[in-house]
Amino acid sequence: MKIAIAGSGALGCGFGYLLQKNGEDVTLLDNWDDHIQAISTNGLRISVNGNEETKDMKICKPNELNEEMDAIFVFTKSMGLKPMMKSIAHIIGKNTKVICLLNGLGHLKTLEAYVEKKNIIMGTTVWTAGIDAPGITHFNGQGPVELQNSDPDEKEAALEIVAILKNSGLNGVYSEDVTYTTWRKACVNGTMNSLCALLDSTIDKVFSSSTIDSMLTGIVSEFSAVAELQDGVTLDVEETVMYLKDLAVKVGAHYPSMHQDLANNRPTEIDYLNGAVAKASIKLGIQAPFCQKVTDLIHAKEDILGISSAVN
Amino acid sequence: MKIAIAGSGALGCGFGYLLQKNGEDVTLLDNWDDHIQAISTNGLRISVNGNEETKDMKICKPNELNEEMDAIFVFTKSMGLKPMMKSIAHIIGKNTKVICLLNGLGHLKTLEAYVEKKNIIMGTTVWTAGIDAPGITHFNGQGPVELQNSDPDEKEAALEIVAILKNSGLNGVYSEDVTYTTWRKACVNGTMNSLCALLDSTIDKVFSSSTIDSMLTGIVSEFSAVAELQDGVTLDVEETVMYLKDLAVKVGAHYPSMHQDLANNRPTEIDYLNGAVAKASIKLGIQAPFCQKVTDLIHAKEDILGISSAVN
Repeated sequence: MKIAIAGSGALGCGFGYLLQKNGEDVTLLDNWDDHIQAISTNGLRISVNGNEETKDMKICKPNELNEEMDAIFVFTKSMGLKPMMKSIAHIIGKNTKVICLLNGLGHLKTLEAYVEKKNIIMGTTVWTAGIDAPGITHFNGQGPVELQNSDPDEKEAALEIVAILKNSGLNGVYSEDVTYTTWRKACVNGTMNSLCALLDSTIDKVFSSSTIDSMLTGIVSEFSAVAELQDGVTLDVEETVMYLKDLAVKVGAHYPSMHQDLANNRPTEIDYLNGAVAKASIKLGIQAPFCQKVTDLIHAKEDILGISSAVN
Repeated sequence: MKIAIAGSGALGCGFGYLLQKNGEDVTLLDNWDDHIQAISTNGLRISVNGNEETKDMKICKPNELNEEMDAIFVFTKSMGLKPMMKSIAHIIGKNTKVICLLNGLGHLKTLEAYVEKKNIIMGTTVWTAGIDAPGITHFNGQGPVELQNSDPDEKEAALEIVAILKNSGLNGVYSEDVTYTTWRKACVNGTMNSLCALLDSTIDKVFSSSTIDSMLTGIVSEFSAVAELQDGVTLDVEETVMYLKDLAVKVGAHYPSMHQDLANNRPTEIDYLNGAVAKASIKLGIQAPFCQKVTDLIHAKEDILGISSAVN
């Protein structure tokens, strides 16, 4: 299968590498010159769950690839999805499947402007990754990569991608309700990410604070209300809060990505998490003051650090 | 007039010093051994608006003073008011006036448990002060010290204290509505203090952020609703937000006291500002989610820094 990875940061490289190892014809796409240069010259140096390998891989800028793909995995930051979709329009054919595993809310709507719904496959992943230097990445995980076709008639196509992921060692799983999974994951990021970024602290410390229940319940209640009204997804508040607290114990002394974004002077994805809930609540005629406040504070923090606002 | 200063930190020393200079018989009360020792041995070294002087002053622990006072100025931190009132019960006579210039909300109610309402004089001050070392303080200001009797029949008593303050160079002013002044000042502290503490930044930077209007309007709307329902005080939201923004320009690159509290591992006064509004809103059957969120986050920050919670 001809597969492009649209956005070949750490996660994109990890997926691309394992797919190619399984025999797929993979091309990495990215816009970071040093990274492209390093991989073109030396191959991708990647550590997968601690096992390091170096592998020759095709990599170029989106406009340099001139073939229709069978499948495209998008792996941008949330605010990079729209510009990426514009720059890869020429490699999307009538049957090109586009698979989106991004964190955050609202991506299906963005994709629908560029891809026929029948070709969109939405999903979530719990694998983690990082870039150590241009061309050098690590990739860790074993948890499921859950996928579901957006068009109810297209289950076969989703199952085909699930099978490829499974054969590649990426634990592909067909999801009967990926919208629920996406909302649940958004709750993780909308609490752990934003609170740790605001409080400049690790997950274990934030979750040991005396006000954690009030903060979690406040945020999750708003996610739950919007999920129900907008997407017909039922997120039980109490159950979700317990899930988050259990997860926090497992994750421990870890700074989530939004904290790392601020520390590295990069814009955060807050507009696709708490910000998306606050915005949706206005449309729905309900209120999401906790999410609004968190979004305001994170944007204020970005401004204070001199981080230019997210591209969209 | 026999005057005790109950809580002789930087503000208390400033008031005590100027009152004694005007001929009043002042005793400083405090519980900090090094500070008491330094002032007893070397006198109080104080800089008032840049003019430094050293002055012999009486200072002791609350239980060491055994005379009824004519007037007592309380200058504790908010959470220190209740324990201080307990420890000075023996110097409060039938006609002892107790003057409270503390920041924050709810202090009148605390005082009423220890002092007859006819003897309580509430007020606000915009003077600022700091402790440079035990026995060495600075004190700056020129703005009004506004006072009003809590019992409508006791205006004469308040006017007498106002006159003493005026003669002492402390710009005493009789206020026709000190409850309004207190709420307005609480809005200043409930926005500048809490936001700068949370965002680890100076007032000018926080007030230059793109989301400042949303944050101010969110918080001030809740203060306004509680002020109206609980105290019959009308705080116009738009006018107050404009006032805060003007004030921020004047104050500039300054870290407010709550930021300094966190930086020095001291508990903050959040429960007497945003926390008081959040708590009151529940009683009143309305909602104050912005204030609740800010309070939760500040308490989480205290917990993460290992600051033990406020005494009360």
